[in-house]
Amino acid sequence: MAAIDELRERLGEIHDLSRAASLLAWDERTMMPAAGAEARAQTLATLAGVRHEMFIDEEIGRLVEQLQSEQGDVPHGESIDADLVRVVARDWQKATRVPSDLQAEMAHASSVAETAWVEAKQRSDFAMLLPHLEKNVELTKRWAACYEGFPGFSHPYDPLLDEYEPEMTTERMREVLTDLREGLVPLVREAADNGGGQTEDPFAGDFPADRQRELVAELISQLPFPDQSWRIDPTEHPFAISIGRGDVRLTTRYDESNLGMALFSAMHEAGHGLYESGVDRELRRTPLAKPRSLGLHESQSRLWENWVARSRPYLERLLPGLRERFPGSFDEVEGEQLYRGANRVERSLIRIEADEVTYNLHILIRFELELEIFEGGLQLTELPEAWNARYRDYLGLEVPDDAHGVLQDVHWPSGAFGYFPTYSLGNIIAGQLWEAAGRDLGDLDARIAQGDLTAIGEWLRDRVHRHGRRLSPAEILEGAGCGELSVEPLLAHLRDRVELAVQA
Amino acid sequence: MAAIDELRERLGEIHDLSRAASLLAWDERTMMPAAGAEARAQTLATLAGVRHEMFIDEEIGRLVEQLQSEQGDVPHGESIDADLVRVVARDWQKATRVPSDLQAEMAHASSVAETAWVEAKQRSDFAMLLPHLEKNVELTKRWAACYEGFPGFSHPYDPLLDEYEPEMTTERMREVLTDLREGLVPLVREAADNGGGQTEDPFAGDFPADRQRELVAELISQLPFPDQSWRIDPTEHPFAISIGRGDVRLTTRYDESNLGMALFSAMHEAGHGLYESGVDRELRRTPLAKPRSLGLHESQSRLWENWVARSRPYLERLLPGLRERFPGSFDEVEGEQLYRGANRVERSLIRIEADEVTYNLHILIRFELELEIFEGGLQLTELPEAWNARYRDYLGLEVPDDAHGVLQDVHWPSGAFGYFPTYSLGNIIAGQLWEAAGRDLGDLDARIAQGDLTAIGEWLRDRVHRHGRRLSPAEILEGAGCGELSVEPLLAHLRDRVELAVQA
Repeated sequence: MAAIDELRERLGEIHDLSRAASLLAWDERTMMPAAGAEARAQTLATLAGVRHEMFIDEEIGRLVEQLQSEQGDVPHGESIDADLVRVVARDWQKATRVPSDLQAEMAHASSVAETAWVEAKQRSDFAMLLPHLEKNVELTKRWAACYEGFPGFSHPYDPLLDEYEPEMTTERMREVLTDLREGLVPLVREAADNGGGQTEDPFAGDFPADRQRELVAELISQLPFPDQSWRIDPTEHPFAISIGRGDVRLTTRYDESNLGMALFSAMHEAGHGLYESGVDRELRRTPLAKPRSLGLHESQSRLWENWVARSRPYLERLLPGLRERFPGSFDEVEGEQLYRGANRVERSLIRIEADEVTYNLHILIRFELELEIFEGGLQLTELPEAWNARYRDYLGLEVPDDAHGVLQDVHWPSGAFGYFPTYSLGNIIAGQLWEAAGRDLGDLDARIAQGDLTAIGEWLRDRVHRHGRRLSPAEILEGAGCGELSVEPLLAHLRDRVELAVQA
Repeated sequence: MAAIDELRERLGEIHDLSRAASLLAWDERTMMPAAGAEARAQTLATLAGVRHEMFIDEEIGRLVEQLQSEQGDVPHGESIDADLVRVVARDWQKATRVPSDLQAEMAHASSVAETAWVEAKQRSDFAMLLPHLEKNVELTKRWAACYEGFPGFSHPYDPLLDEYEPEMTTERMREVLTDLREGLVPLVREAADNGGGQTEDPFAGDFPADRQRELVAELISQLPFPDQSWRIDPTEHPFAISIGRGDVRLTTRYDESNLGMALFSAMHEAGHGLYESGVDRELRRTPLAKPRSLGLHESQSRLWENWVARSRPYLERLLPGLRERFPGSFDEVEGEQLYRGANRVERSLIRIEADEVTYNLHILIRFELELEIFEGGLQLTELPEAWNARYRDYLGLEVPDDAHGVLQDVHWPSGAFGYFPTYSLGNIIAGQLWEAAGRDLGDLDARIAQGDLTAIGEWLRDRVHRHGRRLSPAEILEGAGCGELSVEPLLAHLRDRVELAVQA
């Protein structure tokens, strides 16, 4: 067998096992009877272990080395095989750096910490979580130390970031997010000073779940998914996941007292789903088929949620259907009101409840604290204080207790350091992509007003989705006409939101 | 690590991969968007291949050999470890006999044959299937030849049977099913001659699927499942599958013109599910946790479907709920009528539509033809003729075309020779278990009349389920007080059904 075929066969098997793991994870959060939890955790752990062992096999390293020397330096995006070998070479170099023991210890520690976190959050008792968090940070530092001298890494936070945002550096991320903070803090202050958030919420009311389900299914079916390639199910914390080619699972949550929850979370998850389903067919069953950059991924979900579904023309088109489906609830509501209601600006303590404008400040706070932890300037004992000080500075809010502060997110208990900044990166990229798409396609609002979501979907597929992991995020953005990362498009978009909010 | 721990760890990983495969299979038939089919087939094939490779590893053979010589001859059921080693030793001996190439060729051939079968059946054209069937039989013969000299195998059909009914011999199966045939043929003739099948079907009518769903969920919740350990979903061809401890998936089909379909198929699948969920917790994550005998498995589904759900007291208790849930549909129906309606006897051409009495004749015909094929007396070209002759002899029916004859089942196209007889074996065992349970628990009908299904469930768990694969089917039946296989209890039960039918 040719080396490339043997490599592809091995990677294909590993890919298949990861598809199985995806289904197990989806099922766990949507379908699984509660009593199956213990067996499920075991099954997922085994699949992760087997996949890891199969991937770090020396034979894969040998094949990659042979193929790299055979193919030489091929420009990115020119040959699928060359892109595959390049991406896998880097993945393999990374994967073989970390001893299996350490990997297992981290999985165990974070699992214990997550359990402790649930109780600590309930009791609002940071001290309960502290020793687990210290363990997580210590293990993560040991893990990061495995990458000493790894090409491209120069900051202790670089390997962490690279897990979620390949080839992004800490320095670049810091610059970009500092730009964002400088634009955002005054914007949020302006909104707060001028009564943003006073608008009534037209999505509050009484909405039976089965009616919401029908609405959401109809809205998703208007998006440019391939035929019979998706489904949507209820869950507690919405997510999207791809199981295999032609099989994307979306989820949402139905809050019977607020229609906005299901509506916007479904559009958000659909954005993630469209990305997964738009990867070129030729990349299937290879690691190139699975987008890795969480920044790009989040840009897709945010774009469909915020730029499309919260836009004036989208909501105006939606209104007659809402009136029909929920008699009485929208009779007095006009399109403009719906639009304002979907875009209220209000400072709040909880990230996942934050609006589009203030959301990024929640992220900035977390990113800055993570940097201080891993640069060594911040002790974990001081974390709640540092958290609360930043909420005071950036959002003008007093944190009443740790449950509404430093204990609110699962990320740190689960050992996911380096993840948070990709949320804001996603918003930044969405702003840039929307601007670029507008240049190419003309007035996007006019298209939405006509119910044409296909052109936007196809543009995104062509510029972003189809590449999978063949190109780096930076190369994809370059090719989409976005140039370098820039916060200006996002800030302009958010400035419009604030203007709308303070007019109200 | 001790040899037993290492063996258990290896088997545990393989077990986890088979759990993942179970979920993939369940999902494929209940949830998967249609466009995901190609990726799913690939994923399942990979999981099967990886599991197989992990199992035939020489290290497992070595560990088993070492452990067997260490532990010596331990009576079955005394030590879990000894039972595990004994069962795995046999599985490993079997698995390593067949070359991987042949296994792969068989999987490929049956997949091609299944596709050809769909079209052949649509066109009622046996000739279209014939070459594929010939290939399947040829490969199966080559596969069976791999077992030459395998302990306990003396007939060319023995290895086939052993796949579905471990440690059952062709000779014993032939004796038992011949006994059954001799009792059944006159019984069916009697029913036919005396107008069996003339009863009106009280389950025919107009039953909205969502109401049926509620009913079925309520009935299953009355069965002795552990809390939050099951779910039931609609599918085309109902089945049950266990995903892991505490996680059993049942399925049924909702026919809006007949309530009997969903009701009895749900009880049937629940019987399978109770078996899986009743295996001792101590056997979890080992091959002992997964019942292998299809005869025993089918005895559980048939017992709950036919001995419980089609019994007079069960149906009488059900009636008020039916009247309430389906206003108008059961107002004129009395308990006795419901009971007769659920037990109509009618000769028909299609196995899966057959009633309890005639069903076994459909199986006998298939078993006898399989034997002739593998004993070499029957050419596949003559198969339709042989089929039709037996339907004439045993059931007194003329087969009008192959779609209603030899092409009706997927088993042969999918290469599953040796499977059919386990259906009748299940009915035979169900009869014996029902009789034994009655001896131990007293009047079972009286218990059902009081709504007490727990005692029966616990008896079955104690006598059958909990053992998993620790004991052979014969040992389990012996321990349950059933003695040797005997068709008498089943025949007595079916005689009652016929009497009921001819009275009507």
